[in-house]
Formats: sequence, C-alpha cells, structure tokens
Amino acid sequence: MELDLQKYAVRTDLAIESRELAGQGQPQPIPGVHEDVEDLEDIKITRLDVLDETGANRIGRVQGHYVTLEIPKLREGDSGLQDRVSFAFAKEMEDFMRKIGISPMAKVMVVGLGNWNVTPDSLGPLVVENLMITRQYFELMPDQVSPGYREVSGVAPGVLGITGIESSEIVQSIAEKTQPDLIIAIDALASRSLERINTTIQVADIGIHPGSGIGNKRRGITKEIMGIPCIAIGVPTVCYASTIVNDSLEMMRSHLGKEDTQRQAIMGMLNSISEQERLQLVKEVLQPLGHDLIVTPKEVDKFIEDIANIIATGLNAALHEAVNPDNVAAYTH
Amino acid sequence: MELDLQKYAVRTDLAIESRELAGQGQPQPIPGVHEDVEDLEDIKITRLDVLDETGANRIGRVQGHYVTLEIPKLREGDSGLQDRVSFAFAKEMEDFMRKIGISPMAKVMVVGLGNWNVTPDSLGPLVVENLMITRQYFELMPDQVSPGYREVSGVAPGVLGITGIESSEIVQSIAEKTQPDLIIAIDALASRSLERINTTIQVADIGIHPGSGIGNKRRGITKEIMGIPCIAIGVPTVCYASTIVNDSLEMMRSHLGKEDTQRQAIMGMLNSISEQERLQLVKEVLQPLGHDLIVTPKEVDKFIEDIANIIATGLNAALHEAVNPDNVAAYTH
Amino acid sequence: MELDLQKYAVRTDLAIESRELAGQGQPQPIPGVHEDVEDLEDIKITRLDVLDETGANRIGRVQGHYVTLEIPKLREGDSGLQDRVSFAFAKEMEDFMRKIGISPMAKVMVVGLGNWNVTPDSLGPLVVENLMITRQYFELMPDQVSPGYREVSGVAPGVLGITGIESSEIVQSIAEKTQPDLIIAIDALASRSLERINTTIQVADIGIHPGSGIGNKRRGITKEIMGIPCIAIGVPTVCYASTIVNDSLEMMRSHLGKEDTQRQAIMGMLNSISEQERLQLVKEVLQPLGHDLIVTPKEVDKFIEDIANIIATGLNAALHEAVNPDNVAAYTH
Amino acid sequence: MELDLQKYAVRTDLAIESRELAGQGQPQPIPGVHEDVEDLEDIKITRLDVLDETGANRIGRVQGHYVTLEIPKLREGDSGLQDRVSFAFAKEMEDFMRKIGISPMAKVMVVGLGNWNVTPDSLGPLVVENLMITRQYFELMPDQVSPGYREVSGVAPGVLGITGIESSEIVQSIAEKTQPDLIIAIDALASRSLERINTTIQVADIGIHPGSGIGNKRRGITKEIMGIPCIAIGVPTVCYASTIVNDSLEMMRSHLGKEDTQRQAIMGMLNSISEQERLQLVKEVLQPLGHDLIVTPKEVDKFIEDIANIIATGLNAALHEAVNPDNVAAYTH
Repeated sequence: MELDLQKYAVRTDLAIESRELAGQGQPQPIPGVHEDVEDLEDIKITRLDVLDETGANRIGRVQGHYVTLEIPKLREGDSGLQDRVSFAFAKEMEDFMRKIGISPMAKVMVVGLGNWNVTPDSLGPLVVENLMITRQYFELMPDQVSPGYREVSGVAPGVLGITGIESSEIVQSIAEKTQPDLIIAIDALASRSLERINTTIQVADIGIHPGSGIGNKRRGITKEIMGIPCIAIGVPTVCYASTIVNDSLEMMRSHLGKEDTQRQAIMGMLNSISEQERLQLVKEVLQPLGHDLIVTPKEVDKFIEDIANIIATGLNAALHEAVNPDNVAAYTH
Repeated sequence: MELDLQKYAVRTDLAIESRELAGQGQPQPIPGVHEDVEDLEDIKITRLDVLDETGANRIGRVQGHYVTLEIPKLREGDSGLQDRVSFAFAKEMEDFMRKIGISPMAKVMVVGLGNWNVTPDSLGPLVVENLMITRQYFELMPDQVSPGYREVSGVAPGVLGITGIESSEIVQSIAEKTQPDLIIAIDALASRSLERINTTIQVADIGIHPGSGIGNKRRGITKEIMGIPCIAIGVPTVCYASTIVNDSLEMMRSHLGKEDTQRQAIMGMLNSISEQERLQLVKEVLQPLGHDLIVTPKEVDKFIEDIANIIATGLNAALHEAVNPDNVAAYTH
Repeated sequence: MELDLQKYAVRTDLAIESRELAGQGQPQPIPGVHEDVEDLEDIKITRLDVLDETGANRIGRVQGHYVTLEIPKLREGDSGLQDRVSFAFAKEMEDFMRKIGISPMAKVMVVGLGNWNVTPDSLGPLVVENLMITRQYFELMPDQVSPGYREVSGVAPGVLGITGIESSEIVQSIAEKTQPDLIIAIDALASRSLERINTTIQVADIGIHPGSGIGNKRRGITKEIMGIPCIAIGVPTVCYASTIVNDSLEMMRSHLGKEDTQRQAIMGMLNSISEQERLQLVKEVLQPLGHDLIVTPKEVDKFIEDIANIIATGLNAALHEAVNPDNVAAYTH
Repeated sequence: MELDLQKYAVRTDLAIESRELAGQGQPQPIPGVHEDVEDLEDIKITRLDVLDETGANRIGRVQGHYVTLEIPKLREGDSGLQDRVSFAFAKEMEDFMRKIGISPMAKVMVVGLGNWNVTPDSLGPLVVENLMITRQYFELMPDQVSPGYREVSGVAPGVLGITGIESSEIVQSIAEKTQPDLIIAIDALASRSLERINTTIQVADIGIHPGSGIGNKRRGITKEIMGIPCIAIGVPTVCYASTIVNDSLEMMRSHLGKEDTQRQAIMGMLNSISEQERLQLVKEVLQPLGHDLIVTPKEVDKFIEDIANIIATGLNAALHEAVNPDNVAAYTH
C-alpha cells in the first residue's frame, strides 16, 4: 500500500495532499509525522515534519520538513492580502532556515527553475529577476558591503528543451564553481486540484526530485547530489485535465452523498472503485484521444506575476537582515 | 426543446458543436440546414448554411453562413501544416466574402477583440498587429496606391475592464466615423471541449453576439447594430473546468459502453440523466467551491502566437489580390 | 523672429525649453508670461502661464497653462524618489484641474497615445493599463458606486501605421459617443536634450498639437476639435541624434569658453553662427547619410515602466478623491 | 602609437573599424593583415586575418580571423533581404568553422550573453531561444539521432547584476561539465557609429574579451580560459552619446571641407586636434553632466527581433548539415 501511495504521489507535489490522502481525510495524528497548523486571517500555515521511515512510509513522502501556506483568496488580486502573504512567507522562511540549521551568514544560491517563455512555467526565473543579488559585491569589494546583507546569487538554468542540458547539471556545475552553502530552488508544480493553483506555496528541505514539477527534470537538486542543503519552494501553477475530472468526480461523490438520494444512486457506484482505479479510468478515457492536456487558469499572466512578486519580496526580507517589511519594496522590482 | 438548446448554446460558440448536439451524433441532414464537408490532409472544412427559421430552431443557431476549419494536429507546432492552414483559411475567406456578396474593393475594418494582457484573450489584438493596414495610404495619397490592394483598417478596442467602454460601442463609433463597408471581428472563444482549443477556426457572417466569447461583451457587433455586414472569426482558446469534466463524463459513458461490462454498470446510470442535467450537476459541484475556473493549455503563449500568425497571414492574402501565398510572408510580421 | 522661434519649436515639445530659448538663458520676466518655480527635494516644478498673444509670441508657445516637473535623478531607479514624484504629480494635477475649472465630478477620458509595440512610444498605453477605470460601474450600477470616485474611461487608440486611422479621429469618435467632460492625453515626446529623457513630465491644457510627439499625429486632440478641455501629459522618451550633437556643440561652446584658451579658439568660431544655423549644419551632415536616427537610452524598458507607473499612480490619486497616497498602491497595478 | 590605438580600440568592438582607423581611410595593404572583401547585393563581406604580431600591432586587434557582414539597409525591415543575410551568414559561418579547423561533428555550445530584460542587450538570449538544440537527444538516445545533425547545446548565463556571478564563470563551469568542442558566444556590442547599429554582424575566433560589449564582463570567454576554440558573434546594438557626437564632428569636418569655404573655416580648426583629443573633448563635456548615456534606436524591439532571427536561422543551417535554406524555417521559431 505504501508503494501504491508513493506511486500515486507522483501526481501530487504537495505534502499536505499526501497527508490528506494518507489520513483518508481524518485529522488524527500519523505515527512518525509531526504536524502543526496555524490559522492567520486568510492564510493557513501547515508545518509538517516527516520524522522517520515510518512516517515517510505512512505519508508517502521523503523524510524532511515541509511548510505549506494556503491562501484560497490569493487569486482575487487583493494587494493588501499579497503583502500579508509576503510577510508570512518571509517569517516562515526565516524560521525554516533556522530550524534546519542554516547560519545567518550562509551563502545562498537561488535557482529559478522553469522556462521563461511558457508563462505558467516561468515562476522560478521571474523570482530570480526580482531578487536582491549581492554576491558580486562580496566578490569585488567585500569590505564595503554593509552589515545585514548576506551573499546571494541567482541562476535561471532554463529547461532541457531549450538548453539541451539537464537543469540539475547546470546548477551543480555552477554550485561547484561558486561554492554556496545553501541552494534555494523555486519551481512551478502540477497540482492535484484546481483550487490550489496559484493559491499555495510549499517550502521543503528535500530538494527537487525527479519527475516532480512540469518540466523535464530527471536528475534532482538534492543534498545528496549537490552536497549542500537544498530548499525547494514550489507553487502549483498547472494541473492535468485528468486531475480536474478525477477531482470533480470525488467532489461529486461526496456532494451527492449528502443531498440527493436519487442522484446519489447515479454516482454512488463510484464508491465501489478505489481512487486509484477511478484515476486510471479517467486517464484511459482522456489519454488515447490526446486530451490529457496540462491546463492553467486563463489569467495566468497576472497570477504568476503576483506570486513571483510575493516570493521575491519574502525571500529578500528573509535572506537579508537589513531588509524588512518596511523597506522591502525598495529592493524588489 | 429548441429553447433549451439555444440556452445551452451559450456554452458553445461553435456552429459545428450545435450541429452535433442537434443531430445527436447522427449524420442525416437537418431540414433548413445545408452542409458541405471537405477533407484536406489534416484539415477538415465544414461549411454550414442555416437557411431559414426551421434550420435555426433545429440547430439552435442564428440564420447565416458558418465555415469551420478543424485541424486536430495544429497544436503540434508543425510549421508546414501552419502554412497549409493559412492557405486554406485564405481561400475560405475569399469564397466566404464572395458568397455573402462583399465586393472586391469593399473597405474593410478588422476588429481585434480581447485583452492584450491576458494571453488566451489576446488573439484578436495580435492578429490586428500583424495585418497589412492600408487605409492611411488611401486617405493620404489615393492615386498612388498600387492596384491589387484594398482599403483595410484595424482596431483593437480593448475590454470593458480596461477601457470602461463596451468594445461594441468603440467599434460602432469608429465605424461611423471611418465608414467601412465590412467589419471582420476576431475573437477568442470558449470551447465545449478541450480538443478544440487552438485547433479550430470558425468564420460566420452573424457577427459577435452578446454573451459569446470570454470577455465582457454585452452589446453585439452585428449587421443590425453596425449597419454593415459583420464577419466573425472565432478560435476557441479556453474552456470552463466544468466543460472538461462534463465532456469527460460523456466520453467515459461511450467509452465504457463499448468495452467493459463491469465498469459500464458503474457509469451507465449516467445515461439516465440528460446532458443538460449532467452539466447542471457538474456545475453544482464546482461552482459553489469557486472551482469553475476558465482554463487554457499550459503552452498558451506559443499556441496563440501561432494561430494569430495563421489568421493574419490568411487575411492578408484574402483581403489584397496582390498578396498571395508566395509573397505573403513579406507582408506579415 | 517669433516665426523663427515657432518654427524651431517644432523640435521641442517642452514649454520650459521654449522659455529658455526665448529668455536666452536670462531669468528676467517675459511680458505676457507668468512664471512660478518651486524647488522640492530632487523635484523642480515650473508653472508657466502664457497669458496673451504677446506672451505666446515671445515664448513661441500657444496660450495656455504649463506645469513641468523636472527630476534629474529619476533615471537612477530610486523607488523612494519615484513615490515622491507620484505624490507631487498628483498634487499638481489636482491644482491644475481646479485652476482651469474642471469640476470634481467631471467625467474624464484618459487617452494613451502611442504604439505599445515600440517601447519608447508605449508610455501612453502603459499608463492606461494601470489606471483605475470606473465608467463601467457608473453605466451599469450608478447608485452603487461609492462616493469619492469619478467616472473615468481609458482608451489606447494605437498609431496610424497599425490602425490606418488617425488616433485623433478615433479619440474624437469615441468621445462623441461616450460624452466625457475632459480628455487627458498621455504621450511620449521627443526631447531637445538627452538629460530630459525620462526625467521630465509636462502637463498643459493646450492639448496635443500636430507635429508634436514622435508618432504620426497630423490632427490634434484639442479643445477646438474635441469641444471639451484637453489636458496633455507629455514625457520626453527619445531624441534625435542631431539633437544630441547640436546640444553637445552648445555645451562645448560654453564649456570651452570658461576654461581653455587654446581649445576655445578651436570651437569659438561656432559663436559666429546662430543656433538655427548650427542645427541646420548638423542635420545637413547627418540626414543625407540616413544617420538622423531617433534614439532612446539603452535601459528604455525599465525607464518607461517606472514613469508609466508614476503617472498612473498620480492620476489615480488626482482623479478619485477616495484614493490617496496611503492606499493608492492597492488601485494601481 | 600602437598603444594609443589599442587603448582607443576599447571604444570599438569591430575589427573593420580598427582597420579603418589603422589605415587612416587608405585602402593600401597593412603588413601582417590579410584582407578579402566581397560585395554581394546589399551585403558587404570583409574577411580580415590578423596574421602576426606586426599585424596585431598595426591594426590594434588580437591575432585571429574576423569576418564582418555589413548590411546598411538591414534596418529597413525588408524580409527578402533578411533571408539573403541569413543565407550569407550561414555560408560564412560554415567556411569560418572549416577554416579554423572545427570538425563537422564537433559538439557546439552556443552561449547567448546579455540581459533578456534590457532589449538592446537581449540579442544573445533571443538567439539561443530560437536555436535547434539537440544535445539532449544525443545524451538520451544517441543511436536514434538522424544523420546530418550535430550535438548543440545552448546557454543564456545572464548578467552579473542579475546573477551575482560573472557570465564567463557560468559558461566555464557548464563547459567543464558538458565538454563541448567549441563555444560560439553571441553578444550585443557597442558601436563607434550610429550607422552600424543593427546593420553589422562580426564573427571572430578570438572569443569575448574583457571590457568588450555593453555588459559587465570582466573575465573573457576565450580559448585560453575555456580550453577550447571560442567563436564570438557580435552585433552592435547601442552606442555612446559621445560616440555619436564625435562621429558627427568627424563627418562635419570632411563634409565641410568639400563644400563650403566659409563654414570650412568654422570647423576646419578641428583638423588641428587629433581624433583622440577630440573624443576626449566630447567626453569632458558630456560626462560631468551625466550625459554620456548609452543609446539605441527607438525601434529597438523590432530591430533586435529581426537580427536575432537572422542569426538563429543562419546558425541552424551552419551547424546541422541536414538543415538548409529550404527547410530552415521549420526549425527556427
């Protein structure tokens, strides 16, 4: 069963979704998994620590630390909410780095994965463009850098189809040359559910794993490969058409169960097949016809720009002590 | 029932989809509707004439002429196919204008509807940018215009949210001032089906009707309002999440019917509800949760650019006798 | 002589430059011209009222009111300064509208002139995109609009080469249909001097005149043509290569005069020809060779984006009483 | 004197300009320099080989091979001419690679230098985006690659201000990992003359040298550093305001000399100072005032797009035997 869950997990890049699947929707604790939920206004923060093998098997995720910010109203374009999310994200990043033992002066290389020509995949490069990059000052005039700033570099390695080189290989070769102490990689993810698209930010210290994300990334950006800690920041920006259908069938099943006996009968039989089988069924129908498109909301340009700005603002504040919510706008594009 | 179909038709902007719905998938002729299908390599052209009230009622579409090009492989990015589609589209446009009685020297105003900041809604403005515009030469130095060119102007009126003015009002006021003989309006549409997105081009002489398309267009661009013939060129670039789900349920129903008796039972009961009811059911589930997003393929940037180029190239060749497939590239951006 | 100055004035769109030329660099008052200069930190505001025919002749500008903000450091990208400029510009716009008798509830149509595909000419369309547009609410649900908001619409008419229609004709036809009380037109200008590019904002109530600007605008957007007051907001974003050369020769002349007797002799003879003659000489040299290019700073993308944001923010605050410096960010993109 | 020339050469990135300076406008041969000029219709090709130290000293350029295509009409936007330039450029690239001993199967890494957010500096990244990249196929399924294709990868390393890392360091680290046999680096250059901007393409086997170009590139991309041959493709896309002024003074000097005795006297005295002194004079005047802007033509967006397309098309044809002028469009975006 764990194997099945892990196989299924390929479809979700979000730990909270794995946790939901593992818990069958039940809130009771899972052995080997520590969980902490904080509800701010419009922002729900879930901190999930997968502590050991047992936890990893139960939840179908690699051992590590996961923080998820869920902001269901983020797509509404409220700039006040966006500011509060930047602030909350900055605070979580600071705590997260402290928790996993990153020193305040650790040199950071921020990696913006994805393709800048494909809007829903351009989140990573967009974040890098808006970061406060300082490594050049530390290199060229180290004694003139004001206190409160950390050495930060930024790289957007492109995607295999455009470069012919695995983005992981590019990152590794640059890291070997420039010797950062920490890699923070930002990537656009595929979501299991429409409602998470551009409303969820996940931070994890497990790096980027093969098969995750929407690009062609067969080699990971992980501590094992890079030799230094790798934090991954992921935002779902797309989902498969089959995921929407499957997700809806699930919603229909529970929706109907509550309200309507006649319709309940119609769909109720879906209960008799497992989630796995149902997804298989949907894919069987959609794929041969070439219909299992990856889709994104129509307003993708605005959504990606907004969330890239939130993450860049939050990172600028989290990475440099001298930057804080009052002056961060001056540093972020 | 006709009324119901017409109400339903709000969800589809494509005549061939209305025809399919009306014919229940059966190919026999519909009274009051003349139909002509031509199969080129990779391009299927359907010419549909809704001749009278009977036909209009049966098919749930306004009386008029409709031409649809279906190119299922268009999203594969084959530039050879793109050239062939431009060519076929140019030929259909020429025939269409002749058929509805547009004179070769008629002055044309091309209207690119939609929002240039929202990629899947930017098709119209992109086409206008790539057109060969000539009106200024006819105004400023009419006797120096070479033979074989027609007077063409182009307008991208924007959308209500950005201008505060109905695009139809803007078009009407400019048409009153500049007095074209024909309006050709290009618009991005919502599709009933994922597979049609960016693979289908529809030409119709019924103008743009309220509620169609994905923008906020309450007043139409029609012969009644504008006082001159209005040809609409539409391309589905988005669809509703609910449409994907409903479409998939329909595919599952027929798919299962053929293959698998056990699964057939599971879904078969869906047969007992009508298509209308099923769509209603899907929307009931998705909408309260705010999930009925409008979605577009991940590769939207490239798809829109390609199809805008096809339409601009085709229009340049169709509108100016002096422009033909051999030299059209020199005129199109 | 006045005629000559007026002819020369075609090269400058800025009243303060005409004033400098008229005053021969001398600060004494010019009859028929009222002048008021305010120095804020990093922002110099010049309010120039050309009161009568005498003033108009002396200064070579149409009778009217001119306000110019000069911010030499604006290209340095300091976001704090940008905020202060937005604020100062908003205040000047409010005072300006009051001074020329525009009522607080006057309906405003903002016109973004220029070509959105040519970066240095895209200022107008960019401003319109970032405005708070409200006309649609006044049209659709007038009793639900909160107090403190004014009816504002926005139009980007494009340029003659793309539409085939004079932008002035488009604006006029839309204004006739939508009946605003005031037009505010934003346009990118050609400057006489490199240092003014993207550092100067001019507001004037004389509208846009033929031959001004860098586009093809033969008909004006003026009170005479439109029948309502027309305020023009102009920002120099380009200059002619010949202007740079001529400007430099002038600087060399004065520079050398002060310092160096040997070099002074070399250039001093330039004193013997008038400014007109010198410009003529430069153009004679550059034009036949096709060298009199219009140029813009290399960083044009960033400069235009910044200044469009300043103007949109300032207009949003100036046009709506409910919008003020503290909350304006929430309304501007 | 050679030293002076070399110092001066910092202002020009083009060998033909150095040659002109060295020859004082005279066409006689320079010892140690072999020169070959071919005039096609609208395209002038100059092949310059700097054979030894003598030649290098006389001409003020590093020993090596230089090919320059001058196409004065290229800014006119004629797509027929653009096609002919692509073709001529492809042929020159093929000959150039053969001449310097690059094997037909040599693995090539194409490097697009510059900043994709600064239009006149985005040429390199734009070219890379439009290349036919094949390395991934050679890596993943080497035996399935059709004959006639070569292993090509592409990298856009960004600029120091955005990454915090020298682009040369990034290129070197990726080259060490992926082991290409040849680097082809594309860069936007600063020109000494307005007329060369976006009308000139230079190919040289001397790599990219510190201080060249318009970015911050202190370490070179050269055979010495990279350990493999480095071909540089450069296109002037900007120039300094001071260059325009100086260039114009020079043109005025010769222009006046021919025509007008009165004006000749005025400017003639400029003859008494050397070119070095004159440039110094211009810079003295412009720089303290902050006026020595780097400028680019107003139409920069279109010009850069066109020339990027020409170079990508030419490289695709030159690098892959299976790609030729008849089918290259299918491979280039």
